[in-house]
Amino acid sequence: MLGRVLCAALFVGALQSLAKASQGHISVVLLGATGDLAKKYLWQGLFQLYMDQVSNGHSFTFHGAALTAQEPGERLMFEVLKKLSCPPDEAPNRCAVLKDQFLKLSQYHQLSSAENYTALSREIEALLRQEGLKEAGRIFYFSVPPFAYTEIARHINSSCRPPPGAWLRVVLEKPFGHDLESAQQLAAELTGFFREEEMYRVDHYLGKQAVAHILPFRDQNRQFLDPIWNRHHVERVEVVLKETVDAKGRTSFYEQYGVIRDVLQNHLTEALMFLIMELPANVSRAEEVLQHKLQSFQSLWGLEKNSAVLGQYQAYASQAQEELQQAQDYVSTTPTFAGVLIRSDSLRWEGVPFLLTSGKALDERVGYARVLFKNRAYCTQSETLRDAGHSQCKAKQIIFYFGHGALNTPAVLVSRNLFRPVMPKDSWKEAVARSDLHIFGQPLSDYYVYSPVKERDAYSVLISNIYHGRKDFFITTENLLASWGFWTPLLDSISHQPLRLYPGGVENQHLLDFEMVSGGLAFTLAEPAELLNPTRHMPSDYKAIQSKYRQSPLVSAWSEDLISQLASDMEEAAVRSVARSGQFHLALSGGSSPVILFQRLARHHYGFPWKHTHIWLVDERCVPLTDSESNFFSLHSHLLQSVRVPYFNIHPMPVHLNRRLCVEEDRGTELYAKDIVALVANASFDLVLLGVGTDGHTASLFPRSENGLEGAPTVVLTESPVKPHQRMSLSLPLINRARQVFVLVLGKGKHDITTLLSRVGHEPTKWPISGVSPSSGQLVWYVDYEALLG
Amino acid sequence: MLGRVLCAALFVGALQSLAKASQGHISVVLLGATGDLAKKYLWQGLFQLYMDQVSNGHSFTFHGAALTAQEPGERLMFEVLKKLSCPPDEAPNRCAVLKDQFLKLSQYHQLSSAENYTALSREIEALLRQEGLKEAGRIFYFSVPPFAYTEIARHINSSCRPPPGAWLRVVLEKPFGHDLESAQQLAAELTGFFREEEMYRVDHYLGKQAVAHILPFRDQNRQFLDPIWNRHHVERVEVVLKETVDAKGRTSFYEQYGVIRDVLQNHLTEALMFLIMELPANVSRAEEVLQHKLQSFQSLWGLEKNSAVLGQYQAYASQAQEELQQAQDYVSTTPTFAGVLIRSDSLRWEGVPFLLTSGKALDERVGYARVLFKNRAYCTQSETLRDAGHSQCKAKQIIFYFGHGALNTPAVLVSRNLFRPVMPKDSWKEAVARSDLHIFGQPLSDYYVYSPVKERDAYSVLISNIYHGRKDFFITTENLLASWGFWTPLLDSISHQPLRLYPGGVENQHLLDFEMVSGGLAFTLAEPAELLNPTRHMPSDYKAIQSKYRQSPLVSAWSEDLISQLASDMEEAAVRSVARSGQFHLALSGGSSPVILFQRLARHHYGFPWKHTHIWLVDERCVPLTDSESNFFSLHSHLLQSVRVPYFNIHPMPVHLNRRLCVEEDRGTELYAKDIVALVANASFDLVLLGVGTDGHTASLFPRSENGLEGAPTVVLTESPVKPHQRMSLSLPLINRARQVFVLVLGKGKHDITTLLSRVGHEPTKWPISGVSPSSGQLVWYVDYEALLG
Repeated sequence: MLGRVLCAALFVGALQSLAKASQGHISVVLLGATGDLAKKYLWQGLFQLYMDQVSNGHSFTFHGAALTAQEPGERLMFEVLKKLSCPPDEAPNRCAVLKDQFLKLSQYHQLSSAENYTALSREIEALLRQEGLKEAGRIFYFSVPPFAYTEIARHINSSCRPPPGAWLRVVLEKPFGHDLESAQQLAAELTGFFREEEMYRVDHYLGKQAVAHILPFRDQNRQFLDPIWNRHHVERVEVVLKETVDAKGRTSFYEQYGVIRDVLQNHLTEALMFLIMELPANVSRAEEVLQHKLQSFQSLWGLEKNSAVLGQYQAYASQAQEELQQAQDYVSTTPTFAGVLIRSDSLRWEGVPFLLTSGKALDERVGYARVLFKNRAYCTQSETLRDAGHSQCKAKQIIFYFGHGALNTPAVLVSRNLFRPVMPKDSWKEAVARSDLHIFGQPLSDYYVYSPVKERDAYSVLISNIYHGRKDFFITTENLLASWGFWTPLLDSISHQPLRLYPGGVENQHLLDFEMVSGGLAFTLAEPAELLNPTRHMPSDYKAIQSKYRQSPLVSAWSEDLISQLASDMEEAAVRSVARSGQFHLALSGGSSPVILFQRLARHHYGFPWKHTHIWLVDERCVPLTDSESNFFSLHSHLLQSVRVPYFNIHPMPVHLNRRLCVEEDRGTELYAKDIVALVANASFDLVLLGVGTDGHTASLFPRSENGLEGAPTVVLTESPVKPHQRMSLSLPLINRARQVFVLVLGKGKHDITTLLSRVGHEPTKWPISGVSPSSGQLVWYVDYEALLG
Repeated sequence: MLGRVLCAALFVGALQSLAKASQGHISVVLLGATGDLAKKYLWQGLFQLYMDQVSNGHSFTFHGAALTAQEPGERLMFEVLKKLSCPPDEAPNRCAVLKDQFLKLSQYHQLSSAENYTALSREIEALLRQEGLKEAGRIFYFSVPPFAYTEIARHINSSCRPPPGAWLRVVLEKPFGHDLESAQQLAAELTGFFREEEMYRVDHYLGKQAVAHILPFRDQNRQFLDPIWNRHHVERVEVVLKETVDAKGRTSFYEQYGVIRDVLQNHLTEALMFLIMELPANVSRAEEVLQHKLQSFQSLWGLEKNSAVLGQYQAYASQAQEELQQAQDYVSTTPTFAGVLIRSDSLRWEGVPFLLTSGKALDERVGYARVLFKNRAYCTQSETLRDAGHSQCKAKQIIFYFGHGALNTPAVLVSRNLFRPVMPKDSWKEAVARSDLHIFGQPLSDYYVYSPVKERDAYSVLISNIYHGRKDFFITTENLLASWGFWTPLLDSISHQPLRLYPGGVENQHLLDFEMVSGGLAFTLAEPAELLNPTRHMPSDYKAIQSKYRQSPLVSAWSEDLISQLASDMEEAAVRSVARSGQFHLALSGGSSPVILFQRLARHHYGFPWKHTHIWLVDERCVPLTDSESNFFSLHSHLLQSVRVPYFNIHPMPVHLNRRLCVEEDRGTELYAKDIVALVANASFDLVLLGVGTDGHTASLFPRSENGLEGAPTVVLTESPVKPHQRMSLSLPLINRARQVFVLVLGKGKHDITTLLSRVGHEPTKWPISGVSPSSGQLVWYVDYEALLG
């Protein structure tokens, strides 16, 4: 107790010298005061805050806290404090005096029980009463493991809140959950104790000088950026953090998180948001910034499995096995490398790829956010005569360089052929360009290069922003949940995804290079055989086999080859038909199988005579055409939007008439049948594409119903056993008038029905598909190996 | 006469040695046998033909012809022939023997009168009878000025055609007219004398080895190119011919043609066509190649004034003044430099810029066609460790190098990170890459480089192809007219365009660099003041004037500027509306005025939020939507086909229901009104675009009828005084609910009504347009100077 009293006395003495401070007193409580983060960054950040703010009107006390008992805790903490360093830009004398004061203003507290918190609160109040100081606010910095959050939060809320009129700021360190659900749960708990404006969730990237300057840069350079900060001028955006270290010694943490949760979901996403968000009129108004950032999340396309490429350095599995004491054959599915393609459908960014990349055990340590502009110029002067710094034919880019790498300092780089940026002179200085250094494909002398006047640690920046109440430097609950909402579907879908193994460091060579292909990402190099686990090997190019199925021609192959064959056959049929009659009447089915076909037709068949093609529907669900369940909607998204079929040639089924769905008296079926008769010669479609359901249904003709199976070639309303029940469908006799009918069957799920159908005859009431038999046309089956062979 | 007999004797003697030739005899008649082209290329090409084909079954005689009298002509011609050289790859002994034979087989003829032609024909026939040879065909090579064409053609046709069973091939040299009209006229004349298959129009670029190999390359590398030869992978295509020489000494020719007619309309366009045409199944079938090439022309967007940047080297005007003996202040508007942006709306190439560039007095002599691919890769390995030759992050390009420049040989270059191309070993060899040489931004060692095994002059290649009847190496009449049809509108629109003056050579610096901006091209650097000839200055940018008309804002300008202002204002309205409500409801009028507007919107306004725009019709004629009289049809052709409005957002007026037109009981007007109420908030369109008829009508609301002028905001059927009489229209009250109404008035024909309307008040039954007055919206008039000022 003697030590404590002594300490309290010193503490009060130091405070007195500043009692004149008029704006009130701030108490900073650092929970986890002797932990790694506190030792490495937080105390130094608090000391920096003190140095910066000592004469600006507030008085301070600093309270280190931990579970450790008073005496050893005190000793541990003061050992840390004694090592606090003076920044190079501070006069040594002033710093020595301030450090002495800072030590006197700092006190250790054992905080474990509710009583401890009550006592701390009373102590602060007593002290201030004694000194005649008004309380301005209290900062609680949680530098503790997440499992301890709830209890500490409860204690603060119940026993340690400042009196009315003074604010409370609690500072939280990640992880903030590991997916949307856990983040929501954690957020809900905290919301029970603190108001939103009281919480400061730290993502230390927001304190990195180059990241923190993205928005001010965009603001101060509006005149240059306004015309070019959009999809017409930006070719791509990259946000990258490459590390050389691996996860050794940290696998017990890492194994549960992986690179996406560790780096992409938070750091890289936040930096990306600063780049792509709409710029608020006033970037210093936190509320506006946060609002715009949130809107940016809403414009992002959902991530899918093929949005990412994933890797794991080769030594990881054995490190994890050892550290987690697992069996020898332990298999980890945790990625240590990821590249992710993000897209926005905002008017500004539609079509511009955002590439986020991070990994451990790579060849260099570097982080940056890079905006690469399109080259829209043609330079008539030959290369050798171009002015390298200014020619419009050189790459144009803006880079926010987080640090490390070739530059080894935070920096902002702007290609000289873009513009000379406006930079705040008090905080950023123009660096001397070393022309021997090449960076992002160009000599450094091709850029305007700026680096900070004072290099500041991210935590110092953040602690200063906590003091200033700048919430836009922190992650709000809404922001956090928006980010997890964006990332969780990807995390779910890749949890069993194979990972590319990489040796680490420079030996990775081109193994982790990746490319944008058909809307997603893929590694550039095929999986190198020697790294392949042989059980992963797949037969890659089986040839399409030709044979018979139900007495009709059968084309069979792995699904990708099958689709490509079918698409070619369709184009051939179309070209033939247009040559013969000037038109091609194509009736298409809904369902999921044709989606890949539609995409292939849209992306690979430029010779398809779309201008002369009429598109009809084989069947439709009784939902509005704009409903995502509508067959037409899917056809529109995956095919019609990408090709040029004249408006007049598109014939959705009239399921929606007089603003109601499939009502008999609206006579949609008659209308469609009349259209067919009017436009399609002999009501004989040139090509009908069908699928097969696991129950043997085809079109919307379902088992155990006579509806549409016999009689006139017409259009019928039917009932599906699954929702939405009401359907419209071409009848079997109408289908059977077609010149060609192709049936597409894909996937293991169709193996049973495929086998069954190979054995039965013509029994359309049991299996409507068995009634498909064009009276004077051709039937061809396209069945993939999975459906055929199981 | 002695000389002639002697010569004929020699001639016969030489022929005898080949009398065994079974495939018949070919007579080649070179008209203009002692002219420059003949001296420089044609005789050498004919000698090459002889060397290549001497033992392949045909026998030959070569007939030089000119207007020069027999004896001096003979002497002149044999002086040329004596200088024929032996190609380096030919054994000197064999060549000497063949040269001797060739000289013996060659004969001079004075051809000026019809009798001369008859005599030549008789001579050939007599000779062949005498030698017992069958006549295979006759080649007439026109190496004469174009004014001589018609007479020669008439003589050949009437007096020198080969006998039935033998073919006639006439070879024509450019110019083939100077615009569409003159080309049509020339073509029509020639068609009076020759059948299409008899004419071989030379564009010697088609004989350049690198150009001639474009199609074979595409064919032989289908496996690699199929997936990437499209807009998803190609970033741009450049076809370039840079010259260091200027036009000095040739201005009398050049002044009438200029760089576009001299180089772009023919050489560069033809090379471009080989790159972008759909590849025929069989590239050696001339008919298919020609057909596909022609289709390619049809896919090109029309050129506009802003599709080109134009320049003239500074010394040109004085050279022309001197050579043409003009006054000192002679001003030439002939461009000696042009960059042109061409676009295609084919599915394959939509959005890919094709840049054609050529000029005299530039810094280097070089010609190439270059396909640059998009970079779709992210390379995780740092730059210094990348394998320069293979990294996917290096530029990917395929270059057909015509010759000269740094390589100084024809060549085909393929970036090593693309693929190793299939090249025919007998004609192209892999060149040793000199890594010290940089070309198109990369060391030469980054490419697979192929050069011809034998370098062959373009005329040799063409003469061989005339012999083989390969019409795809020549310009058919259809092809020629398609090309002039494409270029003539640009030539017309730029005839008074200001030219950028450039000093010539390396001093041009960046003066001729240009960029793609808003759908067209512009020089990168602003016009440097010191180079501007003050007398040349043209009033280039009349500002749109803003004022009042009928108490509402008026925007007025020359029509082109007015349309461009209107289009921008519409985009702004759309963006604002989408930002506010997520949608933009736009109602458009029919008629001819909006057509240019639609085209401008389609081609220049990439930022227009089409995805969120709903298109409604202001009025419609009671004809089927596919009728060319339909307003919707015009809107579809000029706008909807080129932009991506979702199918669901397109709302044609239902004039055609139950397969009949505008029958009241079909309730089309009700249907449309209901759709509007259901989709448009408050039935208030965001923007309605109207026109004005000379009678003061607007929408389909006509004078002297109360119909649709008052009452509920609805849709009405009306009667037009002109055919088709029946119309459907938004009513005036519905129009007046809009947030904004823009009225577009163009052309002298509207001057009277514009003047009248400026004086009258609100009298909608007399002039329906005078009733337009949005109750809580804004009305803006867009009236061009012609309508406003007469």
